[in-house]
Formats: sequence, C-alpha cells, structure tokens
Amino acid sequence: MGEDRRRLAAAAMGKIPCDLTVKNVQYVNVFTGEIYPAEVDVIDGRVARVRCPGEPQELESGETVDGGGNYLIPGFIDAHVHVESSMMIPEQFGRAVVPWGTTAVCTDPHEIANVLGIDGVKFMLENGKKSLLRQYVLAPSCVPAVPGLENSGAEFGEKEIEEILDMDGVVGIAEIMDFVGVYNGSERMHAIIRKGLEKGTFLQGHAPLLTGKELSAYAASGIESDHESETGEEIREKLRRGMHINLRASSLVNHMDQLAAEIRQIPYHDFISICTDDVHAGDLLTLGHVNKVVRYGIEHGLDPVDVIRMATLNAAREYGFKDLGAVAPGYRADMQLVRALDGSRPKLVWIGGQLAAEQGVYVGEDAAPAMDFPNTVKAGWIRAAEDFSLIADKTENGTVPVNVIVPLDAGNVLRKTERQELMVRDHRVCLDGREDLAFVCVCNRHGLEKKTVAVIQNFGLREGAVGTTVSHDSHNAVIVYRKEEDALVLLRELERMGGGLCVVRDGQVTGSVALPAAGLMSPKSGRQVAEEFEGYRRAFYQVCGDDTPLLSCAIMSLTALPGIVVTDCGLVDGGKQEFVDVFAD
Amino acid sequence: MGEDRRRLAAAAMGKIPCDLTVKNVQYVNVFTGEIYPAEVDVIDGRVARVRCPGEPQELESGETVDGGGNYLIPGFIDAHVHVESSMMIPEQFGRAVVPWGTTAVCTDPHEIANVLGIDGVKFMLENGKKSLLRQYVLAPSCVPAVPGLENSGAEFGEKEIEEILDMDGVVGIAEIMDFVGVYNGSERMHAIIRKGLEKGTFLQGHAPLLTGKELSAYAASGIESDHESETGEEIREKLRRGMHINLRASSLVNHMDQLAAEIRQIPYHDFISICTDDVHAGDLLTLGHVNKVVRYGIEHGLDPVDVIRMATLNAAREYGFKDLGAVAPGYRADMQLVRALDGSRPKLVWIGGQLAAEQGVYVGEDAAPAMDFPNTVKAGWIRAAEDFSLIADKTENGTVPVNVIVPLDAGNVLRKTERQELMVRDHRVCLDGREDLAFVCVCNRHGLEKKTVAVIQNFGLREGAVGTTVSHDSHNAVIVYRKEEDALVLLRELERMGGGLCVVRDGQVTGSVALPAAGLMSPKSGRQVAEEFEGYRRAFYQVCGDDTPLLSCAIMSLTALPGIVVTDCGLVDGGKQEFVDVFAD
Repeated sequence: MGEDRRRLAAAAMGKIPCDLTVKNVQYVNVFTGEIYPAEVDVIDGRVARVRCPGEPQELESGETVDGGGNYLIPGFIDAHVHVESSMMIPEQFGRAVVPWGTTAVCTDPHEIANVLGIDGVKFMLENGKKSLLRQYVLAPSCVPAVPGLENSGAEFGEKEIEEILDMDGVVGIAEIMDFVGVYNGSERMHAIIRKGLEKGTFLQGHAPLLTGKELSAYAASGIESDHESETGEEIREKLRRGMHINLRASSLVNHMDQLAAEIRQIPYHDFISICTDDVHAGDLLTLGHVNKVVRYGIEHGLDPVDVIRMATLNAAREYGFKDLGAVAPGYRADMQLVRALDGSRPKLVWIGGQLAAEQGVYVGEDAAPAMDFPNTVKAGWIRAAEDFSLIADKTENGTVPVNVIVPLDAGNVLRKTERQELMVRDHRVCLDGREDLAFVCVCNRHGLEKKTVAVIQNFGLREGAVGTTVSHDSHNAVIVYRKEEDALVLLRELERMGGGLCVVRDGQVTGSVALPAAGLMSPKSGRQVAEEFEGYRRAFYQVCGDDTPLLSCAIMSLTALPGIVVTDCGLVDGGKQEFVDVFAD
Repeated sequence: MGEDRRRLAAAAMGKIPCDLTVKNVQYVNVFTGEIYPAEVDVIDGRVARVRCPGEPQELESGETVDGGGNYLIPGFIDAHVHVESSMMIPEQFGRAVVPWGTTAVCTDPHEIANVLGIDGVKFMLENGKKSLLRQYVLAPSCVPAVPGLENSGAEFGEKEIEEILDMDGVVGIAEIMDFVGVYNGSERMHAIIRKGLEKGTFLQGHAPLLTGKELSAYAASGIESDHESETGEEIREKLRRGMHINLRASSLVNHMDQLAAEIRQIPYHDFISICTDDVHAGDLLTLGHVNKVVRYGIEHGLDPVDVIRMATLNAAREYGFKDLGAVAPGYRADMQLVRALDGSRPKLVWIGGQLAAEQGVYVGEDAAPAMDFPNTVKAGWIRAAEDFSLIADKTENGTVPVNVIVPLDAGNVLRKTERQELMVRDHRVCLDGREDLAFVCVCNRHGLEKKTVAVIQNFGLREGAVGTTVSHDSHNAVIVYRKEEDALVLLRELERMGGGLCVVRDGQVTGSVALPAAGLMSPKSGRQVAEEFEGYRRAFYQVCGDDTPLLSCAIMSLTALPGIVVTDCGLVDGGKQEFVDVFAD
C-alpha cells in the first residue's frame, strides 16, 4: 500500500504541529522562478506547507530555525556520477558531498560491477543507505565494456540488468556507452534497451561527439540523456533530439565556458540538468560537488535561478522523481540555506527534514565501524619476478622486433605502436640502455590466469614500479616497471591491501592508497583518502617524471579509447576493436 | 519484452527506407523553441530522424509529402477532457477532434462510470481504439460524487480504482474532486490516493478556488494538477506549489484573458499544459478543440511556440509520456502541418505516421456499424402520471408549506429554498394559478425505486415538460414539468431511447436527442449529434423562456454545487452536504 498522506494534510491544515519550521528565508521557487520571503513547515520528512508573509502558523513546530534572511533552495541532485571515482565507499562519499548541498545522487556503479558483478551493485545500494545522502543506482549497461577484448569480474546481459532493475533504489539503466553498438543495432545493446523500455525505466546515454544520423539512431533507440558534450554545438544538437543534457564539470573535464555560451542562446533549459561524473576525493574536499558546477555555470553567465533549477527540479524530472528537486508541499524536505545564489558552500543542509550538514560539516551519524571486504585481488598465480618478463622466443642477432607502445599526447591518453628492435638476454626482452622504455603488465585479478606484458616508451618512469587495481573498465592490475622484481613487490602489496594504488622503489613500497573495497574504494573518510593520495602522489613523482599523469595506469586498459591499450588478453587497438601483437613481424 | 528499436535505428542510419518523409517544412522544435527548415523521416509509426538542410536522405521513403513550406508541429494533447460531454461515443469523438490537430486525449470517464461502473470504463477504452486518436483513460476517483446523498449506478473504492489502474491505456487517477475530503483527511479519498502513490501513477486534481492551507494540504496529499483556475492569482498559487496547470477553455468557461495576462508575468511555463474539459458537439464542429485554446492563448498575448509547447510537450511530461508531445527521434509520429502558428485548423494531421485528417476531414476508416447498447434507463417502476405528483399528507386550509427551490442567478446554477404555501387538491400539490412554478422530479434509473418530487420557481417552463438522463454526477432522470401526464410521456420516451434529452408539449414529444450509450452518448457523428441537438434546442425554447439555460436540468442534481440540488434521495444543501425537506415545517 502506498504512503498515507493524512498526517501531511493535517499538518498543512495546521491541525497537528510540524517537526520543523525554517523561518525568515528568501525562498527560491524553482517552479515559477520567483524569490520571495517565506516560512517552510516540515513533517515526517516532507514539506507540508510554504507560508508567505500573512499566512500564520496555527501550531508551533517542534523546532524552529531562523534562516537569518538567507536563501532557501532545494538540495542539489547529481544526475550522473560514479562514486568509485572518489575512491570512497558510498557512505563516506555521502559524508563528503552533503556539506556542499548535494542531497541526492544518481550513480552508475559501473566500476564495482566490473569487479564484483551484482554483488557489487548490492554493496553500493546497501552501503549508500549508511549516510543521509539519497543514493540512487542505475544498472550498469556495459559490463564488460567490450566482451572478448578483456576479462572483467562479471558479465551483464539482459537477465542481470533485469535483476538489478527490480531492486529497490534502482532508477534506470546507466550510461549506455556502446553507442556504436546501439546505432549499428547490436543484439547485446538492444536486448538491454528492450528490457529498459519494457520496464519503462530511464535509459541514460553516453554519446561523446556523436552527431548526425548516428546521434539520431542513438536517440531513436530510446536513449534519453547525455553528459559528454564538450561543445555548444553538441549540446544544441542533442537537445534538438529531445535528449536530456547533463551539464558536466568533473575532476577530468570542464568546458563550461563553451557550454554556457550556447545555452544562453537557447530559449528553453528544462531538459538541462547537472552532473559531476568523476570527482576525486581531494576535489570534493576543496572545490565542492554539484555546487561547483553550479558556480561554474553562474560564472559563465547563466542565470543563477536557472542553474539552480537545472541542479534540482530539472534533474528530478529527468528521472521522473515526483517528490524531489523542489521545496513544495508533499516534496521531500531536502533543502539548503545559502548566503548567495552563487554555488558557494551552504550554511545548513537538510535531508528529509533532518539537519545533515552545518557550516560545511556533516552532522549525521558517525561512520560505521571498519568492515571486512572480500579480497578481490586474485593474482597468486603470479609467483616469481620472472612472470613479469617479456619472453622472446625468436631472436635474431640478440634482438627482437617489438610493437612498442608510444603515447601520442602529453596526457598519455592516446597511444600508437611503433616497431622497434629491442635487446634480448636469456630469452627475455631487456631494457638496458633504453631509459625511455618501461614494461607494462596487465594481469587479470578476477580469477583467470591471463596476463599481457608489453613495452611502453616515454611513460616517464625512471626507476621502480607504479601500479593500480583501478584500471577502467575491467580493473585488472596494471603495473609499469623497469625491473621485474619491483613489479612483483608491487603486485604482492596490491594483494595484501586488497587492491589500491602503489609505488615501489628499490624493492620497497614507498607510497600507497589501500582500496580494499573491490580494489576501488577506501572505507576511510574523504580527508584521510585525500591525505593518503597525496602521499602516493609524492612517491609517484619520485620515480616518475613531472610530465607523467597520475592516472596513466588507470586508463592503460580503457578499450573505449581509440588508440592502443593493454588488457589481460593482449594489446588492443581501441579504434578498430582488434588485437595487435606484442612482437612485431 | 519491450519494443525492438533496431529497425528505427537502421532507418535513422539510412540503411533501410522509411515509410514516410515530410519535406519542405518549417519545423518547430518544442525542446529548444527553435524553428528551422527540416525533413522528417518516419518508420513503424515513429520518427526516425529529423534532417536539416545538408543532411541527405540515403534511401527514398515509401511516401514523400511536400509540406509546401508550412509549419510542422507535434499533435496536440488534451490534458483533461470528458468525452461524454460531447455526447459522442469515443470513436466519434476521435473523428471530430483529430481534424483540429488533436492526436491524444487524457479522458476522465467519470460520467459513464457513474452509470455503468467498470464496464463503462472498459467501453470507453475499447471504443476509443476505433478511431486513430490516442485515447488514454484515467480512473474516475469520485463515483458516486457524494455517497449517501445520491444513488448512481456504481460505487468505486480503492479496489475498483486498482482494477482500473491495471488496465492497458489507463494513465492515472482522474480529477480528485472531493478536495474537502482530501484536505480534511477523509479515509475514502486517502485510500484512493494511497493506491495511486503505490502504483506511482498520475494523480489529477480539481481544486476550484482552493487557496492557502487547504491548497497546500491538497497538494501535499500527492495531487499533481488542476484545471479549474479562473484567475491569474489561482494559477500562480498552484504553480508555486508545484502543481501542473491545465489551462482550460471549455464550452462552459473561458477565462483566458486573465490567465494569459498572469502567465506572461511568470518566467517558467513548463508546468502549464492545455485542456478542454467539456466541449459540446456543436462547438467541436465550429470552434475546434485543443487548437481553440491554443488560439485563445495566442490571441491573449502568449508566445505561439510557448503555447504549442504547452499543448504538446508539457502535457506529455505531466503524464510521463516519453514518446509523445514532440516530433523527434523515437517519438510517435503524431504531427500536424499548419499554415500559421495561430491555432487554426491544420492542413494535414498524422497519428503514428498515418494520415489521419486532411483539410479538416478525418481520413481514417469509416465508423463501425451501429452497435447495440444495453438500455440503462430502468424506470419501469414508475407506471402512472400520478407517480409524478407531489403528495401532501398534512394539509391545512387546502394548502401546504413547501420548500420551493428558487434560483439565485440567471444561469440557474445556484439555488436556495423558500417557504411558500401551495394549494393542495386531492392530496396533491397543485400549481394552478402559479405560472412561475414547475415540478421537478429526479428518479433513479439505475435499478433503485427512489425518486424525489419537488417544486421549483422561475425555472422558465411555461408548459409541457423537459427532461434528461444526462444529469451530473449520478445521471438519474431529471424531469421538469407543469403536468404529470407530460412527465410520464417524457420518461417513457427516455426509456424508449435508452436515455437522452427530451421535450414534451401537449403530451407529444416535440424534440429529442437519443443517447443510447449509457443515456449519455450517441453513436452518431458529431454533425448528426449537433443537428439533433439543434432540433432539441428549438423544441426546448417552445416550452421554456429564452432565459432558461439549456443545461438547467443537467446540473439540477449536481451535489458538488454549494446551493440546493435535487437527487433521487431528496433535496440536498450542497454546501452543507445535508438533506432539506421538500415540505416546510
């Protein structure tokens, strides 16, 4: 049976006292765009009534808060975010973002799903309940990203998607990244879409640079949104097709200048919401969360009430949430008191009428005591340093031709291969005299005895080894090293920690972040994770050059990239979606 | 399993030919508010692609229509309408409204539900499928309107509401008219609301003049919309509470001047849609349907694209229809070609890509052959003219004090009672010498042997009798007469016709409209119904004064009115919701 609203009606009628009244505020009405003085009455976690001057309160509320003439706006909703990118488990993520005014997030647990499958999704749902933040989950649509080119810890077909869609708190199918599969009619993608259409659930998109007939085919297939636009033209073209635009500024990308300039030229903005996609713990502590994107939008000339509307009501409507995204009768009392309409940190944040943050400090219950996580780093089958050697069977004149991986850009994002003759000693490729080279090993950590060893140029590693279990999308262990012995030490440390980030120098661990939750997340607080990460960063740059991006290892396996990547199955040309031999002909 | 969108994707990609292309149009994009030249490709009833100049078509479509440079806009959606008010069955209603550009209606079968219960709702759903118009149905929430004060043909509790909500084509709970019950926490209303909240369905409101805490309590209970606003202030207050406003102009009310003036002062209009509520057959033929309201809005200064957006996309979003209300990839190809953005009659109308109307003429299949309707007028228990007499048991000096019904306004809408001494002959109240009086009889026609005979002043009836089986909300037979014999002739004619409207003069039927479908609707075409109604109108004014509203009988029993009404149970004070004796003390 549905919810009984009779107490709410009685409270609105002034027949029973409310739990909370926030008085003396400038109330921002996201429905009409008006701002006016009001008092807000809350009972049972919902707003009963918003009273204007002249509308008396019949019975005093249990608690009355004086808003001091500040603005009262709805809590922010993040329309698309991967909690795992913060390296915090959901309850800690909640503690980190609520003080910035975020009261609900729609998350894609794509990373943990690639490690732990449905159990990972369940963990995110369950652990998410341990903070006050409303954490909704979408069913990851591309697990693994590209079947056949890599091995992750799980595989989701329509059956698994259906099982997830039926869970409480699941509100859609997460970013459907295989847009090529969608517009080309792939059976796998369209089976998942059919399941979503059948359930009438939200179908979230991911369509970077998609345009023309391909974008039409993607939208016509039922995909409802996109958060990848980097130019104004992209936004306009997607809006024209009826797609919801999640305006994004993440820790990785921010094109707000161009996006805001275009949005100012478009009459209607009600299909525009806001998302953060990937935000690192450090950024969450210092820059903020959804409020940061709001701030960027306002700084680039968007109307403040309009941007607040995007971050609240528009996001709720995108998902069909009927009681989120506004402070209005019957709505959840998710709201924030702010000094100015500029995306700065709120003074007070309420979720379901409960005070959740005050002056930037989360005020909900303490975090749960340390929990046990199953160790997901299964690499015991690698026993010796020799396992990290690149074995050359056919040698001529002491050398072997190798398809060396060469970065194409400073960011080490796109890479090609280049045929180079490398020295061989004892049937092993040897890097002596080639300071510009390093080995890279991607080894399966999900139970399969599969690994790839290759050679990479200009990575920037001078000595030792760096490595991680956070490697999109399959999250196998990626280790870059000069000496096999250092790689083994590093892998053993990753195993010991249950996953994480690690640096080894002279056979010693010099920096690490333990991420025991699926090898992706830490149970520690945002502040602790940020501090540990800073230690790791320092150790990283002791062995790597300043130009080496910290995240180089994390995207070494990303088969969605158009260049050369390394998976546990081999070298892969992401653009052609086919294998490339480690050794050249 | 959900719909397979692979053909749609292939068509968008230009790999398979589309069924239809409409070229050379000025395309109105309701998402962005832009107007630009485009060509629209349709396959399998949905839009595959909207091509701009420079985007070639890879394969020729089965049919290509030259739009001649006219505007292409989405088909209109009526957010709230009672089909019964047109006196046409759904398939004929569809034929009447589609030529005006309406392609979908959300209907409240409240009237037929009061006569036939769930079978009536099923009839509307089934018969609605016989025209191309998309006819969605909402579950009537107040059947009967006021239990205990009147007897209708059915009673809906949460069980019946649930049964209806589970039917295909049912999209919500229809206007929850008992707003007093809602804000006062009535168990009946809140049980129905709980059922709606449980199913996550749309909860439609009806809140005339509701304001302040009562309006907040109504909205807080979960009610999502209202179509009753008659002033700008009402609109603003409801919008502020997050309610969807269905901007209405019906055959009965039109306050567009005030409403449009207020809307122009509000920044956001995406919670405003359009409805017609009650439209008579004659108006549908001459004035139009949703397009008429669009025209009124534009004439009163609203932006044309904005009003078109209200009549299309906004209505679809109100209901959560994800593929209606726009001409965009994946959306149903419900669209119209119009000469100007002014609400005038479209040149062409398509529904699901199929041509549905051309130059004002419906072009779908012919109407189904005449069908048999069960006769719902069960009044055989009234056998003689004497049954229409007002029997006075206690007479003093040949007279009896009677609570005579006296209209308070020219429209005969509000009425009071006034104690008057009336002559009695043979124990029967006699109107000799009182030309200003008439009898009114409301007799149950749903199987109960219950009737009320009372006296009404200044109704305007000079001779004979007028009567109807269309009498809101219980639709019992209402007959106003000077002589009992004429009333009997009229009732027998209503029975013979299976219900309808009728005039009797000198014992002869002089005008009638047969409404055999539940005593509410005719299976004939809109043109025939309008012609018959015109004949009835002429006969009506032969026996009634020019000041007598044609609809006086139809609202004689409406217990929602605040004044005196007559039901099969007695005289009722609508404001107090209690009975008043026919005879005075």
